[in-house]
Amino acid sequence: MAAFNLDETLQFAIDLAHSAGAIILDGARKREQMDDVDWDAILKKNTADLVTETDQATERHVKEKIAERFPDHEFIGEESWAAGEEPKLGDKPTWIVDPIDGTTNFVKGFSFHCISIGVCYQQRPVIGVIFSPALQTLYYASSGNGAFRLSPADGGSPRRLPLAKRPAPLPSLKMAVVAVEWGSDRKRETIEKKTKAFATLCGDADAGVEGGRMVQGVRSLGSAALSMSCVAEGSIDMWQEIGCWAWDVCAGTVIVQEAGGVVLGSKADALSSLSSPDFGHVTPQILQGRKYLVLRAIGDTDKESGSDAQRRIAAEFYNAIDDWEAA
Amino acid sequence: MAAFNLDETLQFAIDLAHSAGAIILDGARKREQMDDVDWDAILKKNTADLVTETDQATERHVKEKIAERFPDHEFIGEESWAAGEEPKLGDKPTWIVDPIDGTTNFVKGFSFHCISIGVCYQQRPVIGVIFSPALQTLYYASSGNGAFRLSPADGGSPRRLPLAKRPAPLPSLKMAVVAVEWGSDRKRETIEKKTKAFATLCGDADAGVEGGRMVQGVRSLGSAALSMSCVAEGSIDMWQEIGCWAWDVCAGTVIVQEAGGVVLGSKADALSSLSSPDFGHVTPQILQGRKYLVLRAIGDTDKESGSDAQRRIAAEFYNAIDDWEAA
Repeated sequence: MAAFNLDETLQFAIDLAHSAGAIILDGARKREQMDDVDWDAILKKNTADLVTETDQATERHVKEKIAERFPDHEFIGEESWAAGEEPKLGDKPTWIVDPIDGTTNFVKGFSFHCISIGVCYQQRPVIGVIFSPALQTLYYASSGNGAFRLSPADGGSPRRLPLAKRPAPLPSLKMAVVAVEWGSDRKRETIEKKTKAFATLCGDADAGVEGGRMVQGVRSLGSAALSMSCVAEGSIDMWQEIGCWAWDVCAGTVIVQEAGGVVLGSKADALSSLSSPDFGHVTPQILQGRKYLVLRAIGDTDKESGSDAQRRIAAEFYNAIDDWEAA
Repeated sequence: MAAFNLDETLQFAIDLAHSAGAIILDGARKREQMDDVDWDAILKKNTADLVTETDQATERHVKEKIAERFPDHEFIGEESWAAGEEPKLGDKPTWIVDPIDGTTNFVKGFSFHCISIGVCYQQRPVIGVIFSPALQTLYYASSGNGAFRLSPADGGSPRRLPLAKRPAPLPSLKMAVVAVEWGSDRKRETIEKKTKAFATLCGDADAGVEGGRMVQGVRSLGSAALSMSCVAEGSIDMWQEIGCWAWDVCAGTVIVQEAGGVVLGSKADALSSLSSPDFGHVTPQILQGRKYLVLRAIGDTDKESGSDAQRRIAAEFYNAIDDWEAA
């Protein structure tokens, strides 16, 4: 196998995200302009078919381009993984791709969707590229080289993440904006556990909500990859989800880590790693474990390092809620 | 008083939104670049002071420019209204402005914040301009002239709203993406009612959630004005909030209505108006009533007009939930 060149592979992934983004945007525009739609037929099949065409075209494009340029790399896309066999992550460079993350947003035409392109090498996420064509915003990172954002508001120059020169301290959850998702598992047990968790995060303990943490805000954006990008920016303090997949979080993991943030797994995993040097180490088990808690970079204060603050906030969060099983 | 010219006033409001947006973006950039921050002092005061400076500078700018150009117009800003006296909406042109909507997002650096500039004339909202400087996206509308979006993804040309040439039908809430907010009222009674409502909207009745409507998705974006803009686009099917204020929704009301959407008030108001010709008529009482339900344009089918579909969906939504009191 040819040597794995991080810079060259990152640049290729960024170009790929842009060409894939054009396919996605084109699909969205075509759907918006349809004026001869058989809605009865479409509604009978739910909205799934509306998105399939663009989703598949994008994955095909990405797969082909990668195979052409890097014939000896592995590829794991949503389709292969979802087919049932969980691919074992090997040591070879492995592309883990979600052609459209935030599918429902895409179907509706809501800008918060993106392509998410991650690369693992020797079983660790090392490259992450997330591109939202509707927002015209790109996030990218490679191991050891920092994370960056390129957006229309920045006037054409990439900005290093996090955006704040000195990321704010985080004294407690009360100062945090937390992103969560309602997800697609809507059975009674899951909904009850979720609503209890969300109510505990939001509620004011001084106004009768037992254990309430009174977080500053709760957001639900409908895209794992873009939520993680916001945590990397520092514009969302933390994001938690149970039930999404490795291709939703692989790219975001690199971007968050390179921006000084931390990616954790389930409640049990996170709490047991609090005093370990492995805190924040994303093993293949965590990457594929479908339970994620992601925290932004936190600035040092005289009294506490940012890394200690991340451990403290992770503990406060997971001690406040019970997690639930991924469906 | 000089005659009220809709076109001229709209153009002035758009220019004003851009100049105010530059102040907002500048405030955000300055905060991000601070490297000598007394975090202990800031944290003691909570984050409120971080935003006050930009918020007040923006409102001052907007007020001054309006007074200079239209000396006989009235002005209602967040500060005056929040001071306790509820201003009576008169017949004169009245500017109802939120200098920064989505304040928490702004404080954190999350792009979903905007300036919201509404104008009422003869007690009805007639001009709406919403500009997000971080997203570089503008929404605007005036009564009878349609609603438009100008965003980087559209290549410099305004697009008429809704984005879809033929807005999709909406057979039931099950096909809807609903935006809601957790808000700032976190006492037990409110949190219990909200979580019950959200669980009912999300839950699967076939999997044990009593009355569950199994909506396609739930979003919480943290900005009333931008959530309404998304409903106007058609990218969010509906938005509901209790507790926000007239300056959060005045501009959005015009944009939604001009995009074929409908703005309703409380559960009682909406359900009693279902078979009335006044359905969707935003009275000063509704504008100031702090309870809002907003639906996108819905396409006609052979069996049902879009307007009938809006009534049907409003009824399905409000019959599924109990509302709660604004704090």
